[in-house]
Amino acid sequence: MEIGSVTHQQYGILQRMKCIGAFLGLLALTAAAETNPAAQAARQWREQHEREIFDEFVSLLSIPDIASDRANIQRNAETIQRMLQKRGITSRLASVPGSNPVVFGEIRTPGAVRTIGFYAHYDGQPLDPKEWTTPPFQPALRNAPLEKDGQVIPLPDPGTPFNPEWRLYARSAGDDKAPIIAMLAAADAIRNAGLKMKSNIKFAFEGEEEAGSPNLERVLAANKDLFTADVWLMCDGPVHQTRRQLIAFGARTVVQVDITVYGPNHELHSGHYGNWAPNPALMLAKLLASMKDDNGRVLVDHFYDGIEPLSATEKRAITEAPDIDQALMQEFGLGSTDGAPQKLTELITLPSLNIRGMASSRTGAQASNVIPSTATATLDIRLVKGIDPRQAAQRVVEHIRKQGFFVVNTMPDTRVRMAHPRVAFVTTKGEEPATRTPMDLPISQEVIRTVESVRGPAVKLPNMGGGLPLISIERPLGARTIVVPIANHDDNQHTFNENLRLQNLWDGIELMAALLTM
Amino acid sequence: MEIGSVTHQQYGILQRMKCIGAFLGLLALTAAAETNPAAQAARQWREQHEREIFDEFVSLLSIPDIASDRANIQRNAETIQRMLQKRGITSRLASVPGSNPVVFGEIRTPGAVRTIGFYAHYDGQPLDPKEWTTPPFQPALRNAPLEKDGQVIPLPDPGTPFNPEWRLYARSAGDDKAPIIAMLAAADAIRNAGLKMKSNIKFAFEGEEEAGSPNLERVLAANKDLFTADVWLMCDGPVHQTRRQLIAFGARTVVQVDITVYGPNHELHSGHYGNWAPNPALMLAKLLASMKDDNGRVLVDHFYDGIEPLSATEKRAITEAPDIDQALMQEFGLGSTDGAPQKLTELITLPSLNIRGMASSRTGAQASNVIPSTATATLDIRLVKGIDPRQAAQRVVEHIRKQGFFVVNTMPDTRVRMAHPRVAFVTTKGEEPATRTPMDLPISQEVIRTVESVRGPAVKLPNMGGGLPLISIERPLGARTIVVPIANHDDNQHTFNENLRLQNLWDGIELMAALLTM
Repeated sequence: MEIGSVTHQQYGILQRMKCIGAFLGLLALTAAAETNPAAQAARQWREQHEREIFDEFVSLLSIPDIASDRANIQRNAETIQRMLQKRGITSRLASVPGSNPVVFGEIRTPGAVRTIGFYAHYDGQPLDPKEWTTPPFQPALRNAPLEKDGQVIPLPDPGTPFNPEWRLYARSAGDDKAPIIAMLAAADAIRNAGLKMKSNIKFAFEGEEEAGSPNLERVLAANKDLFTADVWLMCDGPVHQTRRQLIAFGARTVVQVDITVYGPNHELHSGHYGNWAPNPALMLAKLLASMKDDNGRVLVDHFYDGIEPLSATEKRAITEAPDIDQALMQEFGLGSTDGAPQKLTELITLPSLNIRGMASSRTGAQASNVIPSTATATLDIRLVKGIDPRQAAQRVVEHIRKQGFFVVNTMPDTRVRMAHPRVAFVTTKGEEPATRTPMDLPISQEVIRTVESVRGPAVKLPNMGGGLPLISIERPLGARTIVVPIANHDDNQHTFNENLRLQNLWDGIELMAALLTM
Repeated sequence: MEIGSVTHQQYGILQRMKCIGAFLGLLALTAAAETNPAAQAARQWREQHEREIFDEFVSLLSIPDIASDRANIQRNAETIQRMLQKRGITSRLASVPGSNPVVFGEIRTPGAVRTIGFYAHYDGQPLDPKEWTTPPFQPALRNAPLEKDGQVIPLPDPGTPFNPEWRLYARSAGDDKAPIIAMLAAADAIRNAGLKMKSNIKFAFEGEEEAGSPNLERVLAANKDLFTADVWLMCDGPVHQTRRQLIAFGARTVVQVDITVYGPNHELHSGHYGNWAPNPALMLAKLLASMKDDNGRVLVDHFYDGIEPLSATEKRAITEAPDIDQALMQEFGLGSTDGAPQKLTELITLPSLNIRGMASSRTGAQASNVIPSTATATLDIRLVKGIDPRQAAQRVVEHIRKQGFFVVNTMPDTRVRMAHPRVAFVTTKGEEPATRTPMDLPISQEVIRTVESVRGPAVKLPNMGGGLPLISIERPLGARTIVVPIANHDDNQHTFNENLRLQNLWDGIELMAALLTM
């Protein structure tokens, strides 16, 4: 069954067709895996071209790709543009003043009545090379994960297949250059097999996702004619911890809150003034302690107000998701979890408040016998659909006020500090609302069916816990977004020794082939 | 009036003579200042020899003196020994295996029936040279405090007096080499004026006070015959913030408590796991918040139990001490104080619990979007006489248990972390009980009278807020201790840009002359 082109207006109608969608969802679960012809062609192509695919991946990973490194970002963008053009895919670099280029690519399909967009990003998380076992931009093949004593190994002889459990170590191996390679290898396979696409295809490869996508929305808005599509498939992030394919229909967005509270204007001797000079570390501890109860429930007034309720389909998807809480507790060495008895999969559909870090003077062997002068915490609030980011930040600020703090948004001078027993300097950053594509939409159901025809029963989540620049795409283009990741969940994304398990790339090629011919 | 030799046993009797002591205290307050002949001789000598005294001070300050720098510590000790011997004062270096040397010196006085000891230390606080405006071991003369834009100036022409408001910048200028110079210049003045001492005099200059005096008690115990005295005058620390002379009859001691609590075994993405993985920073915040109320009162059970009550004399001394709270709040930019309406002078006679520092992951621009893996705080407990340090530490550990933590004293492994919802790794350091010499003792009253005869009405405190190794002297030697500091209160002791105001050295010389001839 094909749903044909779905316009923006039609989504409104389709969203009401929840019953049908739910029914289709059940059908999808019963579809046989790996029966998709494009995926089959992709497997055959990959088995014959593993080395070429691998070499192209290594070559792309060898270009440093931190968003602030403008020269290398440009090299990445031009390299990807050449990779597209080599395959006969129209490509150009789109940007606005101050932005990194978004690599645009397009395959027009005669007679197609809809357009599917494929998003990935070619920039990587900032890093400290000293933390890496091998240099981050000199990809190294290992015969197992480093955590299991994986050793660097030479490439196999030409014609010998790679062991799919081997891992390629490099910044962006998992997050997020693998999908670019997978898409292009899939396009090769489709063309080689003489298969036809049914939709127009567009590509958007961003160059500053790890810097918070500060310009993506403006670039898309300024190039709306290029990037317009009915749906954008967001190929970023890891698959499910069970290694089952994940499809997420939204993401949480994040508001960062920085709080500094004040004691004396310089550190004081804790003997001479201890008991008398107020301690900012204690002030901060009391403030943070007031924000959540012992089970992790946020105590900020109205914190949970406005959440868009989950549909029956979404609730069922959560119930059907594998229960991995025990396994994760084992993996992370946890003796308890917040929010129990609710499970992780359910909890990430709620907003969260998290302390990213906390600092006051020095500790342990570096500690001095002082009353600290300041204490600082950085929090993040993760939002779900229905909550306005500015309002969420304001609720936290109000909470701080209610704890007796005089709240300022610039660094307080002595006059201000002396005029109030407790002063908090609070800044907030992040104004993106969270978004969620209804699982019941025909396009949602079609994506589910297509994915499951290749990868078997998928884990379907109303939203991911982490962030993706979904609103930056949905708002300027009026398009829906659905997240279809391919990386292994243990790819060390956002930290050192990032890696990709080769089987995830091979699976990703087959998945992309199916989605490209959808 | 002379009190003659006071043996250890006699103290017991004398301690009961509080009424007489209080009476003598009143007499002392009415004594005219600056009538002490030795002090007068010292002033004359100093006015004639400012440059020589200054040069000897600079020369001593030029030898690096961090306790862990054994080679330079030895150079300091030998230099001071030569300075003593040059003046005909018998000297030797006393040590035990592993200790830094204590420089011993002695002036025997024919017919004397008591012995007065003078303590100072020649090691300085550890430092980071990068924080210093001029190198810490290249003394620099400034025409005002750095905080008031004081500039480095050349030495005055020979014969021209120093401006007493000038300051000498160097590590240990205030803490604690100035008293050594003051004592030796005073001895020179006494000899030159042909004045006679009435008591035997002993000197003890320690070389690892800033490392916590780990060996002082053992050195004194092993050399008891050398160091025996009736009273040791502890010349360390600053005078009162009003610049009035301070006499303190005790000190608080310190127990350091290090606490680490645990979340996941590595930092987790706050999007994927925020709301679910327990946050150790929040755990620590809740724990610390439970330890004190909003007015700074410690909520640890039995925390204040056992405090030896203040005598009427001690209470009166506190009442008579200048009220400097408002001025200090101004100086430190504070909008409130803990323990109000009690004053600083009273509050330091109580035990305190202070957070020295707090750390979890990173904050501000360095923050990552993570749930931290651990959170750490270093606390100090300041104790007053009557509380056993081990018991005080145990009370805090019990409090941590009562907050639901499984407390371990070695780093917990995964098994332990998984077996308990909350695990705290707690270590404590410091076992010195606090001591306090009764103000009513005849020797206490005599010291007060002598000091006030030189420096006018003194601020007399039952104990200092900070620590001094009093028990390490009292316990092995059976001697009393009384603290008579000379440094300016704004000398930046324990931090960078330590300095001494020259007038404080000049005053110190006169004070030491009076005490040496007591």
